[in-house]
Amino acid sequence: MPPAQLQLHPDRLLPADPGVRAVARRLHEAVAELPIISPHGHVPAQLLLDDEPFADPASLFVQPDHYVTRLLHASGVPLERLGVGRGPLPEAEARTVWHELCAHWSVFRGTPVRYWLESELADIFGITVRPGADNADALYDQVAERLAQPQFRPRALMSRFGIEFLATTDDPCDDLAAHRKLAEDATMTSRVVPTFRPDRYLEPARPTWVADTRRLAVAADTDTGSYAGWVQAMAVRRRHFIEHGAVSADHSHADAGTAPLEPVDAERIYAAALRGEVGGEEAAALRRHMLLEMARLSTEDGLVMTLHPGVARNHHRPTFERFGADTGHDIPVRVEFTAALQPLLERYGTHPDLHLVLFTLDETVFSREVAPLAGFYPSVYAGAPWWFLDAPDAIRRYRSAVTETAGFTRTSGFIDDTRAFCSIPARHDMSRRLDCGYLAGLVAEHRLEEDEAFETAAALVTDIPRKVFKL
Amino acid sequence: MPPAQLQLHPDRLLPADPGVRAVARRLHEAVAELPIISPHGHVPAQLLLDDEPFADPASLFVQPDHYVTRLLHASGVPLERLGVGRGPLPEAEARTVWHELCAHWSVFRGTPVRYWLESELADIFGITVRPGADNADALYDQVAERLAQPQFRPRALMSRFGIEFLATTDDPCDDLAAHRKLAEDATMTSRVVPTFRPDRYLEPARPTWVADTRRLAVAADTDTGSYAGWVQAMAVRRRHFIEHGAVSADHSHADAGTAPLEPVDAERIYAAALRGEVGGEEAAALRRHMLLEMARLSTEDGLVMTLHPGVARNHHRPTFERFGADTGHDIPVRVEFTAALQPLLERYGTHPDLHLVLFTLDETVFSREVAPLAGFYPSVYAGAPWWFLDAPDAIRRYRSAVTETAGFTRTSGFIDDTRAFCSIPARHDMSRRLDCGYLAGLVAEHRLEEDEAFETAAALVTDIPRKVFKL
Amino acid sequence: MPPAQLQLHPDRLLPADPGVRAVARRLHEAVAELPIISPHGHVPAQLLLDDEPFADPASLFVQPDHYVTRLLHASGVPLERLGVGRGPLPEAEARTVWHELCAHWSVFRGTPVRYWLESELADIFGITVRPGADNADALYDQVAERLAQPQFRPRALMSRFGIEFLATTDDPCDDLAAHRKLAEDATMTSRVVPTFRPDRYLEPARPTWVADTRRLAVAADTDTGSYAGWVQAMAVRRRHFIEHGAVSADHSHADAGTAPLEPVDAERIYAAALRGEVGGEEAAALRRHMLLEMARLSTEDGLVMTLHPGVARNHHRPTFERFGADTGHDIPVRVEFTAALQPLLERYGTHPDLHLVLFTLDETVFSREVAPLAGFYPSVYAGAPWWFLDAPDAIRRYRSAVTETAGFTRTSGFIDDTRAFCSIPARHDMSRRLDCGYLAGLVAEHRLEEDEAFETAAALVTDIPRKVFKL
Repeated sequence: MPPAQLQLHPDRLLPADPGVRAVARRLHEAVAELPIISPHGHVPAQLLLDDEPFADPASLFVQPDHYVTRLLHASGVPLERLGVGRGPLPEAEARTVWHELCAHWSVFRGTPVRYWLESELADIFGITVRPGADNADALYDQVAERLAQPQFRPRALMSRFGIEFLATTDDPCDDLAAHRKLAEDATMTSRVVPTFRPDRYLEPARPTWVADTRRLAVAADTDTGSYAGWVQAMAVRRRHFIEHGAVSADHSHADAGTAPLEPVDAERIYAAALRGEVGGEEAAALRRHMLLEMARLSTEDGLVMTLHPGVARNHHRPTFERFGADTGHDIPVRVEFTAALQPLLERYGTHPDLHLVLFTLDETVFSREVAPLAGFYPSVYAGAPWWFLDAPDAIRRYRSAVTETAGFTRTSGFIDDTRAFCSIPARHDMSRRLDCGYLAGLVAEHRLEEDEAFETAAALVTDIPRKVFKL
Repeated sequence: MPPAQLQLHPDRLLPADPGVRAVARRLHEAVAELPIISPHGHVPAQLLLDDEPFADPASLFVQPDHYVTRLLHASGVPLERLGVGRGPLPEAEARTVWHELCAHWSVFRGTPVRYWLESELADIFGITVRPGADNADALYDQVAERLAQPQFRPRALMSRFGIEFLATTDDPCDDLAAHRKLAEDATMTSRVVPTFRPDRYLEPARPTWVADTRRLAVAADTDTGSYAGWVQAMAVRRRHFIEHGAVSADHSHADAGTAPLEPVDAERIYAAALRGEVGGEEAAALRRHMLLEMARLSTEDGLVMTLHPGVARNHHRPTFERFGADTGHDIPVRVEFTAALQPLLERYGTHPDLHLVLFTLDETVFSREVAPLAGFYPSVYAGAPWWFLDAPDAIRRYRSAVTETAGFTRTSGFIDDTRAFCSIPARHDMSRRLDCGYLAGLVAEHRLEEDEAFETAAALVTDIPRKVFKL
Repeated sequence: MPPAQLQLHPDRLLPADPGVRAVARRLHEAVAELPIISPHGHVPAQLLLDDEPFADPASLFVQPDHYVTRLLHASGVPLERLGVGRGPLPEAEARTVWHELCAHWSVFRGTPVRYWLESELADIFGITVRPGADNADALYDQVAERLAQPQFRPRALMSRFGIEFLATTDDPCDDLAAHRKLAEDATMTSRVVPTFRPDRYLEPARPTWVADTRRLAVAADTDTGSYAGWVQAMAVRRRHFIEHGAVSADHSHADAGTAPLEPVDAERIYAAALRGEVGGEEAAALRRHMLLEMARLSTEDGLVMTLHPGVARNHHRPTFERFGADTGHDIPVRVEFTAALQPLLERYGTHPDLHLVLFTLDETVFSREVAPLAGFYPSVYAGAPWWFLDAPDAIRRYRSAVTETAGFTRTSGFIDDTRAFCSIPARHDMSRRLDCGYLAGLVAEHRLEEDEAFETAAALVTDIPRKVFKL
């Protein structure tokens, strides 16, 4: 039997009903080729600065992508065999990694990972057959051959992908040299900016916190021996980021809690933390106070504040100890926003310079908390479906849960949040197809006129992300 | 370019699939003209007693409706500019309010507010163009002109809307004079009854509670100096309401908790509360005991008990302080019924005279708690989707989540819960269209015969609400 | 008017869209006749050993089935009138029970109970008219007549149903004599095996626990005077079950908590419990330690571990006291897996011999916790929708919520979990129809090729349950 074909159907992800699909197709055609705005993701600036060829299919598609490796691991392939936590491998090992992916192609059925990989293989690398154990080597060769060509280097791809704006994710102490060089490079037509991601500095019970605080002092040239100094150092580094183009600060903690401390208590807990003598509860109290402070700084310096709470990181300690973080076992937990954000919103919720984008892995808050908050506070936006929820059915559930209370203009526009560079166009296109399908459903049920659907479909990928992220 | 048309498509909200839609259309035709039963809402009796013309489009459609003003506020229009918290405005200001609505018409895309407003403008006021900044003044004139005509006064509209039964929401101390006069008025063909809404009297930590309790003593002519007296006064006022036609008592607190106190403890906490010396925890304990008492009274006097828990009221304190309650920033929180209601249901759950209707803004309890409770206890009914969930997609999720465990007969029938008088027919029609669509889906999948779907569609707007609310 | 027909449409439960339905029909035809694997349920082995005729329609369809009696009870029929908690009734009473079911046929509209009953009546008993008060007696006669025929005895039906594998649910102290005899009976072509269900022995605060522990000591011929002895006795009984064919151990507690105790603490609490002196908190701590121990034993003896947490059992105490357990008022509560299972998964989550299948009545964990866990840990499987969620719309929500993160291969395959013997084929067929419908939707949206959908539809009822339950 010949291997099955791999073909991207032009109507993929559009609603099955022929009438609705016809509308969705028209909408999609109108937005399919619009440039990509990617206001939050994990592509390293260095990748674009170096513009070196990607090493091989394994390090491009498998090893660093925990979306891919986790389901292979669940299917019985040890992470070690997938080269997790290592850079590019010797060719024989890289082929093994790639072979595992192809041999387990069927376990990805029905997942967006499968969808993205298919899109990338077909659209970028010209693959026309379905991967499997039998053709893994041939496909490896075909991808590897392309990767060696100049038009498959990162910058060429970025241009081909139509990426107009790309934000990376960076440590507050980063000197942002790569970003500066990119900005100075006249050949770069896209805008690449850093994102201020200070989580570790807001976690006083973290083993590395004292050292992190010291690094922060050096980077900011500011004494962080007191809480007031820490705030000052943060403000300095935020300015540094803004000077290098940053538009947002990203925050991810166990919960979304914000709660003010009296200045004297903040200083006391901070001092205890510097001595390594802070308990879990006080550390959390200080973190919630610090997060509130970050919101205050946003009202001053204008950085958009994005919030990604509710993940139990590194759930399987043995895997973490062996392979490090971001290796597929971060597991979501319940989230609460209404009470957690009240202190923040009471203070800054109607401040004209605050933009607060709320992301969640707990779908229950979409209709219960996120949409009601975004539907009242001019500062609050419902962030796009994130991570495990960045998938066709989940995206539909998101639009269904959020729109009726908050409309479209109170949502963030699509966020790819990815470190898988080649998947960016497929992810954005997936989102566009699903939004067009949702809008087409509204049109088909006479809840929206088609001219409005066209306008909304375009706004979701242009005006809306530009406004939310102040581009 | 001419302004876009505003037309209500006859198939609006019906499922897109042509086969399913055909069934849904037949079902809807059979129930579209049936009278409206509205067992819970917020239209004031005085409005119908006075029967004065509505003042102007702004005070009719915008100022008092937090569904409308909240999304305008989120879109950057200050509540002050929308006349929130004020009565009818001078014409120039009223036109400004109306203009803000029209100019922001697009932010309501995909929301039920947009759907209701369109229905009202087209069906009641004969508007045929889509509102926008350009035509705001002309539309204002057209609506205002109609409002001046006798057939647009409240009673004439009520008759035109086909409202057979309308319940208002009233304070236990209300003398219900307006209701009495309406009942005595032979020209009123609809039945208008009060609803007993005692929340504030069950919240001993509320700043006004001591004064409220004193007012209650006066209204009931009963000494409320002891807990036993408070119970007695409540019973007296419930009888007063029943004598004026009330069929239900409505309760809304932070949680659905019910838990008995020993009589001595109830008296002790009550006495402390009267002295203004009650803590938050004891106040909540007394409230949960009081709610249990309300259920006991329902088994005696037969008032249907409706429960609407789980909203953090007045989330944004500065807005509350300036504009008052019900101004768009009540935000839902998680809800729990299974444990919270066990004390109540253990005592009264199989009592033949108790009807307990459960509403929620936390959709997670539909399949997990509400339907299982309503599917066992003869007293419990799953209340219709409420507030933020009174919207097409949410109503579908409700039917999908509830029906498989509790069927249709254990649900409450539609509840509009609105203070927007002119939206009542649009809301009920929306509900009917969606229920017909859901039933049509069951027919199309051969899970229900069409004759049963017809019977069920009719029962949902006739027998079922009549039985649940003892009409 | 002649009574309505009762007919099973060949396309029942398949998606309404004609194009999608055509694919779904093809998929269903390919799997409709495959044998039934039932790895978890509540049919008693004795029923098959005795192979006596079923007594009458009431005791077969109504009395013992809390899915049926609960909604009748909610509709005002006292459980006493339904013969709940009693065995077969005198004919007049049995006819009354049956009559109540038929007279209340309409309250089951839209529920899976109605669907299963229709399937059973039509497919097994040749009923061709819709039940109702008018024809209840005639239908009783028709069913009763068939029940008297040899081809309607349990074993004949089991063979006709195509049940290849059936697991019962059994107490650890059960001698499993019925299972042994069934295994020795050469005329039994199906495999019938016990399931180890030790819940009561893990609940030290339960009134019967001390006595249960003593029974365990006798059954295991092991001293259970110490915690170490209890573990040993458990291990002995598990081996006894395995020798009689058991493949899994089933666990259902209020929560899914697992947490290790120091050995000295386990012994101390265990000793206190034996003296009847254990508090609720310590009892829960010991239970969570014991559950962890059960996982450890599973890594040793290979029994699949199934977990069904999150139900408040016997919610209405008066009904429990009069009619016993499993009488329709077990009500779900919120569930949490991420933190609760971390101790277990940190220890055994990557152990090659552990299979842990997670069931829930709280749908919120499907996308938030269950799929992420099953998508990383090779030991974890997402259990099929359970109990209140074993219904068409809920099954669709389950596939939608789980597949995008965990695919199909990390799910358990269908579990009927029923004591209603005659409903087994209808339940499995329902699941197959819905899975085929879901797969057809993926095909229609070009998210999956049709050959893969065929393979997946078949795997879901063959390879997948066989692998998950080690058959």
